[in-house]
Amino acid sequence: MPKLSHLDQDGRARMVDVGDKPVTARRARAQGRLSCSAETLALVEEGKAPKGSVIATAELAGVMAAKRTADLIPLCHPLPLSKIDVAIAMDLSLPGFIVEAVVRTEGRTGVEMEALTAVSVACLTLFDMLKAADKGMTIGEIRVTEKEGGASGAWQLPR
Amino acid sequence: MPKLSHLDQDGRARMVDVGDKPVTARRARAQGRLSCSAETLALVEEGKAPKGSVIATAELAGVMAAKRTADLIPLCHPLPLSKIDVAIAMDLSLPGFIVEAVVRTEGRTGVEMEALTAVSVACLTLFDMLKAADKGMTIGEIRVTEKEGGASGAWQLPR
Amino acid sequence: MPKLSHLDQDGRARMVDVGDKPVTARRARAQGRLSCSAETLALVEEGKAPKGSVIATAELAGVMAAKRTADLIPLCHPLPLSKIDVAIAMDLSLPGFIVEAVVRTEGRTGVEMEALTAVSVACLTLFDMLKAADKGMTIGEIRVTEKEGGASGAWQLPR
Amino acid sequence: MPKLSHLDQDGRARMVDVGDKPVTARRARAQGRLSCSAETLALVEEGKAPKGSVIATAELAGVMAAKRTADLIPLCHPLPLSKIDVAIAMDLSLPGFIVEAVVRTEGRTGVEMEALTAVSVACLTLFDMLKAADKGMTIGEIRVTEKEGGASGAWQLPR
Amino acid sequence: MPKLSHLDQDGRARMVDVGDKPVTARRARAQGRLSCSAETLALVEEGKAPKGSVIATAELAGVMAAKRTADLIPLCHPLPLSKIDVAIAMDLSLPGFIVEAVVRTEGRTGVEMEALTAVSVACLTLFDMLKAADKGMTIGEIRVTEKEGGASGAWQLPR
Amino acid sequence: MPKLSHLDQDGRARMVDVGDKPVTARRARAQGRLSCSAETLALVEEGKAPKGSVIATAELAGVMAAKRTADLIPLCHPLPLSKIDVAIAMDLSLPGFIVEAVVRTEGRTGVEMEALTAVSVACLTLFDMLKAADKGMTIGEIRVTEKEGGASGAWQLPR
Repeated sequence: MPKLSHLDQDGRARMVDVGDKPVTARRARAQGRLSCSAETLALVEEGKAPKGSVIATAELAGVMAAKRTADLIPLCHPLPLSKIDVAIAMDLSLPGFIVEAVVRTEGRTGVEMEALTAVSVACLTLFDMLKAADKGMTIGEIRVTEKEGGASGAWQLPR
Repeated sequence: MPKLSHLDQDGRARMVDVGDKPVTARRARAQGRLSCSAETLALVEEGKAPKGSVIATAELAGVMAAKRTADLIPLCHPLPLSKIDVAIAMDLSLPGFIVEAVVRTEGRTGVEMEALTAVSVACLTLFDMLKAADKGMTIGEIRVTEKEGGASGAWQLPR
Repeated sequence: MPKLSHLDQDGRARMVDVGDKPVTARRARAQGRLSCSAETLALVEEGKAPKGSVIATAELAGVMAAKRTADLIPLCHPLPLSKIDVAIAMDLSLPGFIVEAVVRTEGRTGVEMEALTAVSVACLTLFDMLKAADKGMTIGEIRVTEKEGGASGAWQLPR
Repeated sequence: MPKLSHLDQDGRARMVDVGDKPVTARRARAQGRLSCSAETLALVEEGKAPKGSVIATAELAGVMAAKRTADLIPLCHPLPLSKIDVAIAMDLSLPGFIVEAVVRTEGRTGVEMEALTAVSVACLTLFDMLKAADKGMTIGEIRVTEKEGGASGAWQLPR
Repeated sequence: MPKLSHLDQDGRARMVDVGDKPVTARRARAQGRLSCSAETLALVEEGKAPKGSVIATAELAGVMAAKRTADLIPLCHPLPLSKIDVAIAMDLSLPGFIVEAVVRTEGRTGVEMEALTAVSVACLTLFDMLKAADKGMTIGEIRVTEKEGGASGAWQLPR
Repeated sequence: MPKLSHLDQDGRARMVDVGDKPVTARRARAQGRLSCSAETLALVEEGKAPKGSVIATAELAGVMAAKRTADLIPLCHPLPLSKIDVAIAMDLSLPGFIVEAVVRTEGRTGVEMEALTAVSVACLTLFDMLKAADKGMTIGEIRVTEKEGGASGAWQLPR
């Protein structure tokens, strides 16, 4: 039966000890989305708002946030990241934005939280830049989609 | 027609100038959720994982993250917050956790982003603490539900 | 009977809501000490270690740490500080160093935690700079000695 | 005769160059305490304040602070920590709280400062949560109790 | 004769006490430049490197850095900024980039350091993004060009 | 022809993937200066301002800033630094201050940005401490002067 690695036998929250795990190449991919009204998306799409500025700002915020993950998530280990990529695409059918992040490290623990943090903060930044036009937006569907490296090996979100 | 306050006439991303806005009492409420498997929720509910530790850790992470909002969201103003409250409840029907945050300030601009950041980081922390049991969890439905104060007055998310 | 302001009626840790408190001038003074061997103090005193460098570095670290208080103490409010002063004196009779900090703000809540954080980090920095000579040092007697401003008025540590 | 590693031959404060030291497993343990009145401790012990919330918040603050050590202590090296554990126990005879931290890394320099920082910030957080009931508390007896790894080998505080 | 406000009568570095200064509207403008080879500038200008990405990234880094000023400059006061604007223009005659920042606050002290920090970090970010093509670039001519508000009133850099 | 490593084929700003680069010993040296009036320099030189305090504060600020480089420069990798040295000398002929920084790491990418950040923030700190006497100072001539390690090998700024 699975158990929760972040609680000790007395139920106290604790950081997992990764000191005896080997350093291996690890990669994680996460995804999320910001849903907005078609009018808001049109503002960005039709050029009232330069698509580039909104999206580029949010992508950069996501990259920077991934580097702050261990500062934000109490029991996360600080890790030297070798790659952070955040890509945002507009999706007219949603309507809204699809955000994807990939993070790599050579370390003793995985980088799912770094990828999820990048996606979350990129979504928050999109929200911040569009909220003057649309207060009712929703951030959602944030999840890990792929994971590689470490003892548990490769994993993909079942479709 | 609405326009995007964070872009200037040339489309460059910019911080809004709030220097001429009055200081008023402002409040924002935001919500979100972490959906997990019924088995994972049962681990927390049935006491394999002390409910308190998981939830208390995530609530605290949310409070601390709200104070870091201007560090994370590039065009957010730094604000002296007078109150941050994050409350997490288990929801067996989801199954998962409902996260709610309320933030108050006396300032020149609203605190929606602080409330949304608190909710997002609380959800990320829940994910971190439960991921050993369940990699397929989803963070979602993050949105502002209420807002008070400032020129635009009170606002509630339409149901 | 006194109660604990940082716990709500259900016992959850929470930030105190200071939004309805008036902005007043507030000041706090705190003190602490690093006790070391007479030989270690002599290294600093007799000039093997320039007194200035060790003490100036620790004073500066204390000032900078006071500005990070709300980042470090989970339920502390971020405050715009108007003055931080950290002063360190050698004490041959201890033997060791006496550290004192004074912090001022115009705000809705007191600055005891900022003064205590300045003292603590100044002591930690002294420890760091002297630990190659003396691993057995002790940091102690850290406490608030004076407090002014706010509803509870002036207070002094009874002698 | 011992000398101070953080000062160069001209007496300037400097960071020690650890680039030529080998990466080894290192561990440090530190301890400290918060002394309060018996009445304050009783508030926590007898359930006016849920013991869990006060202690769990302070433990978490200690863990997070250990990750910020190199940000706070000017001449400390940034290190990827593999384990941080902070445990707080009530001590009726003190009366007060005993705080202990253990930190591990695989690195070029020791983690005493990380363990001491965790203890210090955990004590500060206890102080913050109890200060409405008791302004006269004292933080003290903060010291390294054990150290392993690196050229100087294992060390224990003499009793 | 002018004296140095950041040193007390004993010559210790200290933070200026601004607690008794009035809160006034303050504004500062600063400027700086990155000089690079004509070839490097051409890479950006002629579209091998999208002008927008390089410049937008550096502008955003400047805005975010202004918010971190009190974290970086030891004796700076933390201030709630109401406006930060960073604008970068290519200058073929230099050849290089001209960086300008304007910062506003309602506070007890000026924002020159915030404007200078924004310019400096924007220049560093340009350097980072172009250094694969040109290691010999120079950052320079960083200075305050205008200042308004506070007891000393308006000031302009003499031409 | 050189190309810009921080832009992908679509021109989006991106972090370089260093995950497949070997860990090697790397070193970078950077330089910069603060030019001030002869009168301001005389204040520091002739002892109105203790030379030590002004210079020691700025050196320390430079060291601490180097550790924050990846927080400030959006596309920089977080690196565990093994050495940071910042040295400031007065130069009567300038008149002003010459700032030099050396940074070392064992890592997958170079430390030029860390050295440049240390120099920039040391210059900003000098400016902050002297600005009450002299608003017209200029920070300049910030550049990398040497670089060792990594695939591109040793490099020196041509004189």
